[in-house]
Amino acid sequence: MARGRVRQGKLQVIPLGGLGEIGKNCTVLQYQDEILVIDCGLSFPDEEMLGVDIVIPDFTYLVENRQKVRALVVTHGHEDHIGGIPYLLRQLQVPIYGTRLTMGLIEGKLQEAGMKLPQGSRWVRAGETVKIGAFTVEFIRITHSIPDACALAIRTPVGTVVHTGDYKFDQTPVDGEFADYRRLSELGEQGVLVLLADSTNAERPGYTPSERVVGTRIDEIFRNARGRILMATFASNVHRLQQALDSAARWKKKVAVVGRSMENTVEVALKLGYLRDPGKVLVGLDELRRYPAHQQVILTTGSQGEPMSALTRISTNEHKGVEIQPGDLVVLAANPIPGNEKSVARTINNLYRRGAEVVYGPEAGVHASGHASQEEMKLMINLVRPKFFVPVHGEYRMLVHHSRLAQACGIPSENILIGENGTVFEFTRNSATIAGKVTSGQVLVDGLGVGDVGNIVLRDRKQLSQDGILIVVVALEKETGVILGGPDIVSRGFVYVRESEKLMEEAREKVKQVLLDALGRGTTEWAVLKSNVRDVLSKYLYDKTRRRPMILPIIMEV
Amino acid sequence: MARGRVRQGKLQVIPLGGLGEIGKNCTVLQYQDEILVIDCGLSFPDEEMLGVDIVIPDFTYLVENRQKVRALVVTHGHEDHIGGIPYLLRQLQVPIYGTRLTMGLIEGKLQEAGMKLPQGSRWVRAGETVKIGAFTVEFIRITHSIPDACALAIRTPVGTVVHTGDYKFDQTPVDGEFADYRRLSELGEQGVLVLLADSTNAERPGYTPSERVVGTRIDEIFRNARGRILMATFASNVHRLQQALDSAARWKKKVAVVGRSMENTVEVALKLGYLRDPGKVLVGLDELRRYPAHQQVILTTGSQGEPMSALTRISTNEHKGVEIQPGDLVVLAANPIPGNEKSVARTINNLYRRGAEVVYGPEAGVHASGHASQEEMKLMINLVRPKFFVPVHGEYRMLVHHSRLAQACGIPSENILIGENGTVFEFTRNSATIAGKVTSGQVLVDGLGVGDVGNIVLRDRKQLSQDGILIVVVALEKETGVILGGPDIVSRGFVYVRESEKLMEEAREKVKQVLLDALGRGTTEWAVLKSNVRDVLSKYLYDKTRRRPMILPIIMEV
Repeated sequence: MARGRVRQGKLQVIPLGGLGEIGKNCTVLQYQDEILVIDCGLSFPDEEMLGVDIVIPDFTYLVENRQKVRALVVTHGHEDHIGGIPYLLRQLQVPIYGTRLTMGLIEGKLQEAGMKLPQGSRWVRAGETVKIGAFTVEFIRITHSIPDACALAIRTPVGTVVHTGDYKFDQTPVDGEFADYRRLSELGEQGVLVLLADSTNAERPGYTPSERVVGTRIDEIFRNARGRILMATFASNVHRLQQALDSAARWKKKVAVVGRSMENTVEVALKLGYLRDPGKVLVGLDELRRYPAHQQVILTTGSQGEPMSALTRISTNEHKGVEIQPGDLVVLAANPIPGNEKSVARTINNLYRRGAEVVYGPEAGVHASGHASQEEMKLMINLVRPKFFVPVHGEYRMLVHHSRLAQACGIPSENILIGENGTVFEFTRNSATIAGKVTSGQVLVDGLGVGDVGNIVLRDRKQLSQDGILIVVVALEKETGVILGGPDIVSRGFVYVRESEKLMEEAREKVKQVLLDALGRGTTEWAVLKSNVRDVLSKYLYDKTRRRPMILPIIMEV
Repeated sequence: MARGRVRQGKLQVIPLGGLGEIGKNCTVLQYQDEILVIDCGLSFPDEEMLGVDIVIPDFTYLVENRQKVRALVVTHGHEDHIGGIPYLLRQLQVPIYGTRLTMGLIEGKLQEAGMKLPQGSRWVRAGETVKIGAFTVEFIRITHSIPDACALAIRTPVGTVVHTGDYKFDQTPVDGEFADYRRLSELGEQGVLVLLADSTNAERPGYTPSERVVGTRIDEIFRNARGRILMATFASNVHRLQQALDSAARWKKKVAVVGRSMENTVEVALKLGYLRDPGKVLVGLDELRRYPAHQQVILTTGSQGEPMSALTRISTNEHKGVEIQPGDLVVLAANPIPGNEKSVARTINNLYRRGAEVVYGPEAGVHASGHASQEEMKLMINLVRPKFFVPVHGEYRMLVHHSRLAQACGIPSENILIGENGTVFEFTRNSATIAGKVTSGQVLVDGLGVGDVGNIVLRDRKQLSQDGILIVVVALEKETGVILGGPDIVSRGFVYVRESEKLMEEAREKVKQVLLDALGRGTTEWAVLKSNVRDVLSKYLYDKTRRRPMILPIIMEV
């Protein structure tokens, strides 16, 4: 389909961003000349994206259709749903709607970037409805691993779209804010055109345990601990932090928060009333040290073994404020996100080496997922009873599994659509089709550069990382082609140079011979000269070392 | 302790190699001037070891004490127990003992390296005893995920050492070769000084399922499959391959093996009688294609999502011989090894994208670990009833958990020793102490280079991989210091050059200014000049890009 072409009377839904996960970071709804954006998050680079800091959705489609974009609505305050906002706003000013905590976290993020909430932005209550052009957006309370998370019901001229956001059905939510089952089923009764639903845990049978189960376990741990407690969890899991504060109060302990992102969340959540200190439990780290060990609790980041995080540095004794003592109890209240297993394991090993006891792993009961398992997914489908079903928020295999659950719930397979980021799902009141693809994909952010690190730079970094680089420099007289200096060879990341003098000297001789031969034949095309040098050197080095460093011949005309 | 100093009448046990896992790849026993080496394997590099192919133990201690080394005894034929042998033999000729399949696999490995089994090597039967200097080594049948695996009982003048090797207690082994419980308990009766025991699954409660359970599940899958089956598993799991062949025969299917390492194992195992074709089941891939889809089975490598493996290439449609068709059933008969989760997930997603159905994950029942879980570990300890206990073959936290199991079985905590690679455990008949440390650690193999990639090369590769490199070349007149050519700037892996012309031009100007300033002041120390260039450029680029590429100034004297 042509980008942005208007289809009369049709509704388009486009999952736009998410690294490996379809529609995770951003989804677009379009009706005629109006676009509504749902969420605008970031992903963390995978191991192939060398040197990249974060990954944001490709906003090309939104920028090309900037005059159509009416608003950004945000389901909840996690990084993978709000982290891309500063980058979007640099290209496109658009009002933002979200619940109070979500907006508080977005504001903090924008402040860090020296930005402000765009004009017209405001926070809304769960249950509230906002009219945005052709779309009427209703925020519906849902439970997730951050407070104030919502699903969205979006009425459009074609029909109602329900987007679950990230959710689980926590039947005993810590803050007493239940998912709005009544409203979801009412919508189902009234008729829902399409359900876009979170597929993260589509491979997991049964129900996801309540966050309160974790609280019970934390309380046991706090009650029994005879020494200091360090508890690492996701900075944004305010419910879990609240449960830790409550248990600390119950067992007469004091709590200090260590780690920048957690300090930030705690500050915002306290200010907005989503977290409360049950009685001067929170203290600074310096004050905490004045209490006996068994009264000390440190809440900290680093549950994923991130190299620069507080817990990782504590585990290797590189943290200024906290040193592990034998008798310390470390609670890892998080499961490793895929890809982080090894760094988490390394952190645990190092904590044991320093004499700490560590509570970790699925059996420990100190973590519960924020996402629905299969039985909850079926419940969602049966409450909303959509005509069409589009699984989102997951890797491809998860969408497949989710689609099977929908079929099991009676949705005909022809009414279920699976796509990728950029896929245009097109709906009328009675039909759903895949109507093409728009520009989508990942934009890599490295330092201040947004999108300038692409395939060429990554390919070079990959080669450099594997076998290093060898630079050949030679100075030639411009007119005559006589060698005035060099050839010199410098290498980095290739071999340990001190022990490879002979290899390098032979390589230099090879290069010299190639140059003299070619120049002797009257070659004046420097590109040919360079290519000869590269070929000969590359073959020679591969024979000698079985390595393929990048070879960079530089000819300097003097 | 001084390296190799003889301690009269004492026995030293030294776990010598294993990346992150203590004693996994190699363990050393020393009594006076005699050394026995147990296993000699390799590890696969972790993500920090950029460009490294494999990791082998540091053999310094063995090389320095070469006249003492009597033999290498090998517990089983897995890569992490035999893969280092060609590297050891290049430094040290020493006879090798192992069971028949183990020796067959070692021979194949040596042939590939253009080497032969050292003089005096021979294969032994489980139950057999070999006298090696002061050591009497008894091979004891054990069950593991490769046939012909053994534990070792080593009688020494100080007492008996039992080393479990890698093991589980499979009560229904596929080949009918039960672990030798009787002999283990007899040894326990006679008195064992120290037990060195596999800790891999020390975090797992209960029992590890039998390999036969996997066979039952495979048989169900083979019976029910209506299309072609592709089954990926570890190349060396001969029992599993046997079960697949048996099921294929039962359900009238033909089997082709795809993937070099599996083809090798199958060849050796068939030749030595550890694998048998139950009736012309095995065919070539070309022949297989002549059968209808439901009669086709492909056994293949790539269960870990390794980039160059058969299944990974099949999943991205880059394999010459096999193309996924809708209706294909892919069985991933392996769990991801820590660190491989993401690549395995990517492979599964791609297989679904191509229309295959995939059976995977712990719930699928198509994989069983080869290592003992906690109840088996306790059984081992209670059979052998050692005076001292040293957990090995595991990461540090696993050793801690294993040591707690030993305590639960009644071994006093002061009789349990935990160490690292290189730790010297020293035993008399009545005492066990940690008596120092010998040179140990990892030697990185990259191409033909063994050990030449060290911290400096890796640090450079790391920097190159993150932000690339910027090379500044300038030609100066030797005597006068006048700039004759350049400065030119070339970058790789830093920015997309076409879109950064202004940045590069400004950088060039900066460099030129620094050079002119310094040369104007009469600087003749090229090192000073280079350092000035590096400082100015590094600051400028960081301000503009927040990146820190490697900066390499090259001054060419003309």
